[in-house]
Amino acid sequence: MNKPKISMEELVSYCKRRGFVFQASEIYGGVAGMYDFGPYGVELKNNLKRLWWKEVVYKNTNVVGLDSAIIQNPKVWQASGHVERFNDPMVDCKACKKRFRADKLADVDSTDVKELTDIIAKLDCPNCGKHDWTDIRQFNLLMKTFLGPVEDDSAVAYLRGETCQGIYTNYDNVRETTRAKLPFGVAQIGKAFRNEITPGDFLFRQREFEQAEMQMFVHPDEASKVFAEWKQARMEWHQSFLTKENLRFREHGENERAHYAKDAWDIEYNFPFGFKEMEGIHNRGDWDLSRHSKYSSKELDYFDEASGKKYIPWVVETSVGMDRLFLATILDAYHEEKVGDETRVVLKLKPELAPVKVAILPLSKKPELSKVAQEVFASVAGEYNVEYDETQSIGKRYRRQDEIGTPLCVTVDFESLDDKAVTVRDRDSMEQERVKMSELKEYLDSKLS
Amino acid sequence: MNKPKISMEELVSYCKRRGFVFQASEIYGGVAGMYDFGPYGVELKNNLKRLWWKEVVYKNTNVVGLDSAIIQNPKVWQASGHVERFNDPMVDCKACKKRFRADKLADVDSTDVKELTDIIAKLDCPNCGKHDWTDIRQFNLLMKTFLGPVEDDSAVAYLRGETCQGIYTNYDNVRETTRAKLPFGVAQIGKAFRNEITPGDFLFRQREFEQAEMQMFVHPDEASKVFAEWKQARMEWHQSFLTKENLRFREHGENERAHYAKDAWDIEYNFPFGFKEMEGIHNRGDWDLSRHSKYSSKELDYFDEASGKKYIPWVVETSVGMDRLFLATILDAYHEEKVGDETRVVLKLKPELAPVKVAILPLSKKPELSKVAQEVFASVAGEYNVEYDETQSIGKRYRRQDEIGTPLCVTVDFESLDDKAVTVRDRDSMEQERVKMSELKEYLDSKLS
Repeated sequence: MNKPKISMEELVSYCKRRGFVFQASEIYGGVAGMYDFGPYGVELKNNLKRLWWKEVVYKNTNVVGLDSAIIQNPKVWQASGHVERFNDPMVDCKACKKRFRADKLADVDSTDVKELTDIIAKLDCPNCGKHDWTDIRQFNLLMKTFLGPVEDDSAVAYLRGETCQGIYTNYDNVRETTRAKLPFGVAQIGKAFRNEITPGDFLFRQREFEQAEMQMFVHPDEASKVFAEWKQARMEWHQSFLTKENLRFREHGENERAHYAKDAWDIEYNFPFGFKEMEGIHNRGDWDLSRHSKYSSKELDYFDEASGKKYIPWVVETSVGMDRLFLATILDAYHEEKVGDETRVVLKLKPELAPVKVAILPLSKKPELSKVAQEVFASVAGEYNVEYDETQSIGKRYRRQDEIGTPLCVTVDFESLDDKAVTVRDRDSMEQERVKMSELKEYLDSKLS
Repeated sequence: MNKPKISMEELVSYCKRRGFVFQASEIYGGVAGMYDFGPYGVELKNNLKRLWWKEVVYKNTNVVGLDSAIIQNPKVWQASGHVERFNDPMVDCKACKKRFRADKLADVDSTDVKELTDIIAKLDCPNCGKHDWTDIRQFNLLMKTFLGPVEDDSAVAYLRGETCQGIYTNYDNVRETTRAKLPFGVAQIGKAFRNEITPGDFLFRQREFEQAEMQMFVHPDEASKVFAEWKQARMEWHQSFLTKENLRFREHGENERAHYAKDAWDIEYNFPFGFKEMEGIHNRGDWDLSRHSKYSSKELDYFDEASGKKYIPWVVETSVGMDRLFLATILDAYHEEKVGDETRVVLKLKPELAPVKVAILPLSKKPELSKVAQEVFASVAGEYNVEYDETQSIGKRYRRQDEIGTPLCVTVDFESLDDKAVTVRDRDSMEQERVKMSELKEYLDSKLS
């Protein structure tokens, strides 16, 4: 078994060819920074979301879920600092008009305009080779919209730039309705939007993307301990289905850390374009609830019955980019293997993540086989994704299922009509076993669990 | 068992008090037409989505899923007709400045401006009683945003007004990557946005909401048959967990049907404000693929191998509002029952839909009980939502779980320390059974399935 590094070009092509990811609005030439998830992509992504939800919400006694709206009152984004500060530095080449994110062009993890200006002053345009830069300007990443019929300042609202703000604004609602004691966490999965100057690297930097975030509300004295526990737990979770060598921690430098962050670490994955952030774990102090308390004039503190004291909880956050995790999962599972003289592509996903769990493959399109195969489908389908496919040679259909990571293929052949049994093929070992139809569901369930 | 009709005011209050639905940005006074789903709301909604997905995608051999971006190329919405035609008629009272949706004010299912003008000419303002109307103007419901740093016409993009357009634009990608033959369907669940003039009726008419849509691509001659089958199947699905008497079909009248619709029916639910649309089933003809083919200059037809002919498939659509289904599900499951001298509220959801499947309730907060109860939690948690709650009297905790529809409560008492058994209480019968801890998981699984 060898594991070549697949290039991004090959990955994009594979994701399209195999129905994982399409360019959004492809028939209209696309739209920058947006992607659509195809039939196998939506299943893989839903499986990843469910795996995260089980791990973060269901396995803990003190974490609950939430699903807040994408559009909130604009004051939320004033309180959070996004309206004022959620900027990327932007610079244009006056000669060729190409636009760059200044920190990416300067290749530093810094948002300091002076530092960026100094570095870029020494660079030529990578596009046209000339040297004629505009000043660096700050560009706000919040996407704007209008509520109501009049498009004026009073109607402006924003698409959320991160999902966590909906958690902070509901801190008191959740605490009260679940009667939670500190420490407790609130988890959310959902879309966020950023008007990226230069979206790129496929799913890695999109303008519309999905986050899975958990915000733990804690006593200030406990924040460091809770932070350390979650930092460890999150890494172990990634390691449970991604190759350890492709994962690493990275601590944020002084210049890149948000001014309120007490501690900030990334979990990075080894993408074809290098180790890059997949998840962030942050000790955010009391910044979030203090700001929302101030801007809303509502008390957002916690009354500790034991000590009789009130205080504003600190927040420990874990935030994973679901699309980045999706990319990493495919990259990690992608294998090319020699089988005899041929090479097969096989996506070695664990069954829980596989887009299709079982493929039902009648050996031919003959009506008598179709009839039985349809019955087999009906006897096993419903709870998880089962595919029915009767087109092409059986060898080609096996390869196709290998490429989308289907753990088990069930072949219905002419013998099946007599012996009421089917052949089950294992994706990884490629071994085949004859199983009675009456025992098939149980057999498949045990193999998939 | 009696089943009183709960009023909308009571429902809104119950949904907040029990952690199902909060007003979005409540601490900032809210934002019109937006809601957040709390800890039990997000679980119920996810369970409904999963139930739909299993029914529509997993149980059929010829339906696959998709998850397309909310923001697409704006040409999508020109082709679909939304930019030109997705309007609501709006009228203002000049005296009190209150704004109305003209068709709602006139109380007719019509968008004909002349008809609406004639009716409204005879009405006084329901707000101030005066009679001084503006002309009726058309207001476009698409929410606008800008991609990139410059906010001009060339940067305008729209938040999708419906999820189905992402299915049409991917028709050819899905067909090719899954090698599907007609008829085949593509299903999607996701957010859509409409700049409603007067959002209202709680979750019923929001500006941000969720749709679950399935688009079946069919041969024109088969459209009527496929339409009839899905119309029936969708009603049967709703009837599988909602009261039959609260569901009915309604055929669209001539004036309300989209000009391209060959056939259009609603499945209505009996909300406290009357029978209203929950799902729409439409025979859309070749409108969608024809328009996208014309606007994109791409061939979006189907080559029939048997006949050697090419044609543009027709579309049969089923589209359910997930938030409306969420509302209907709570309304339908909500019961008030006399128990002795008291009244208990109980949400009689089927286990698959219940936000919490099992509650683990140590009889008191004593450390020795907590320890065992935590072990019990760990032994059953992970796959589904289990709640751990050790605050308040056991009676109050039972009532609380009844109100959120938890099918099974597990009580850990001092006897448990000796006999290694727990008491399991059934939500509906309120009967209790003693179960060995070692057999608990299996017992719960069998009760929940």
